[in-house]
Amino acid sequence: MISKQVRPIIGTMIGDPAGVGPEVIARALATGHVHELSIPVLIGSAAAMERAIEITGVPCSVRVIRSIDDLSDDHAIVDIIDSGGLAVDELPFAEDTVCGGEASALWLDEMSALAASGAIAAGVMAPISSGSLKLARKVPGIVSPTPGESYLVLLSGPLRVAHLTDHIPLRQVCDIVNPDLVALALRQIDGAMRNWGITHPRIVVAGLNPHAMGTEDHDSIAPGVEMARAEGIDVEGPVSPDTVFRQCVEGRYDIVLAMYHDQGHIAVKTWGFSGNCAIILGPSYLHVTVAHGTAYDIVGKGIADPAMMLSAMRTAASLVAGRGFPA
Amino acid sequence: MISKQVRPIIGTMIGDPAGVGPEVIARALATGHVHELSIPVLIGSAAAMERAIEITGVPCSVRVIRSIDDLSDDHAIVDIIDSGGLAVDELPFAEDTVCGGEASALWLDEMSALAASGAIAAGVMAPISSGSLKLARKVPGIVSPTPGESYLVLLSGPLRVAHLTDHIPLRQVCDIVNPDLVALALRQIDGAMRNWGITHPRIVVAGLNPHAMGTEDHDSIAPGVEMARAEGIDVEGPVSPDTVFRQCVEGRYDIVLAMYHDQGHIAVKTWGFSGNCAIILGPSYLHVTVAHGTAYDIVGKGIADPAMMLSAMRTAASLVAGRGFPA
Repeated sequence: MISKQVRPIIGTMIGDPAGVGPEVIARALATGHVHELSIPVLIGSAAAMERAIEITGVPCSVRVIRSIDDLSDDHAIVDIIDSGGLAVDELPFAEDTVCGGEASALWLDEMSALAASGAIAAGVMAPISSGSLKLARKVPGIVSPTPGESYLVLLSGPLRVAHLTDHIPLRQVCDIVNPDLVALALRQIDGAMRNWGITHPRIVVAGLNPHAMGTEDHDSIAPGVEMARAEGIDVEGPVSPDTVFRQCVEGRYDIVLAMYHDQGHIAVKTWGFSGNCAIILGPSYLHVTVAHGTAYDIVGKGIADPAMMLSAMRTAASLVAGRGFPA
Repeated sequence: MISKQVRPIIGTMIGDPAGVGPEVIARALATGHVHELSIPVLIGSAAAMERAIEITGVPCSVRVIRSIDDLSDDHAIVDIIDSGGLAVDELPFAEDTVCGGEASALWLDEMSALAASGAIAAGVMAPISSGSLKLARKVPGIVSPTPGESYLVLLSGPLRVAHLTDHIPLRQVCDIVNPDLVALALRQIDGAMRNWGITHPRIVVAGLNPHAMGTEDHDSIAPGVEMARAEGIDVEGPVSPDTVFRQCVEGRYDIVLAMYHDQGHIAVKTWGFSGNCAIILGPSYLHVTVAHGTAYDIVGKGIADPAMMLSAMRTAASLVAGRGFPA
């Protein structure tokens, strides 16, 4: 285990209280592997975590703390900051609710505030529910990347993909892509990777059209790549979209910049590695999201696989400490 | 081994003579596994096959035949129809040439003629070179699918993907997709699958936009799926493009209809199964293509992996006999 002095404090919001978030967090913490790289603290409902511990049967107990100074740093104790945003008697189960959405939005705000104050070094988000958030009329800014400002990065073992655009119709993607936007994203990705401890990031840009041989590839993407190269960024492209992800899997590059949502998501989800997590690049602090949903169909059964949650918590700790991607 | 009476005669054109086609064919035939399902015959250059046998060291000899009636059906004998389209003294090696392109185009025509006459039940194409074909000013129709007429189908174990469009800019794909085109493709896929021995094909259609929630998904794709369903075809969709390929891998569907080239190609190539092959759906006979290229960098070394070639030859044999996809 890395000494306490160099292990960052990582905050994890427990996700929608009706989903599997609390269960996978309980199981991830109980492994002890989160504590190897970080000192963890949860943000959410102590009652939800107590229920999850009962469901999963892990040998842990919940302890509500008032301040980060009170952290136990013991993997048998689940430290949580519970501001009372969710009444204990309305703990939802396996369904979207107004209270679940309100609590999720509140906990995300609390996590951001803790990060802004420096109390936590990075934030991890367990599965939230867009349905609950809609019921509660909350739209957390963090979950909707905006081209030119923030980018969704999916991590799946050696396959790492940043997305230039996110939930945007394909037709609009063709209009939006331009050299400045590509160069802007490349600068941000290169800077983030260096901060995370990848001393010489090798970046590749996916083309937009088949074999990267269309108008946008030549006129919009290639000049943006050239701008970044002129600034000293190690980047190639545009490369044929159908081969570039496999090349990343095989280790030729550290990260792919995909032009649109499905380009990267099809690659990551079809490849099927189980340790996926996601980063939102753009906020002032490192924000890591688990790559699965609330999984209402298996809530309460204690069978939800904690691999992705563990990956998210360990990745946040390793990157924010500048130690690169965890093995 | 299936009895001779029910094993179809499968013709294989050897690909560009400068590439690894002859080598992987020699190694595939020498396994004996091609003969388990078919009686094979090659179309191409006997000299190229003799060189490949020497390179790979397989215990086979080449025999030029004049007619399909002369087939030996012996996996130590490589039967080939050699019309003299490539002079022995100009046998190219690991580079694009005019003679390689001219010979490839001629052999493809000869294979089509043999299929049209019923002499062979299906045709397999080893890796050709678009560079050689360009030098020779030949553009074989079979290698460029046309929306509404022919479709590229990639097979990769349980992941099978038909493409509504092929080498078309993404921007144009958004304009081209319409209900009739989707229904037309679904009818052709359903019919082909039934002919191949899949008695109840379960088809799924990928959406065009993120989470299949855009204008084209609602207005162009969904009505096409409904038309096909009304005709009794078992088809679902449009489904979110980033999850549909994984669902096919897991066995929920027999085949995915992808809307554009990279949607399907990213899924198949990133997944990384080694037994890939491709079918062009549309010609009057079953046309199967190996899913790798000429691999000039390893020509002559005898190390080219025959797995994809073997898969192409066995798939052609199994499907044309109505036995379904080979295990």
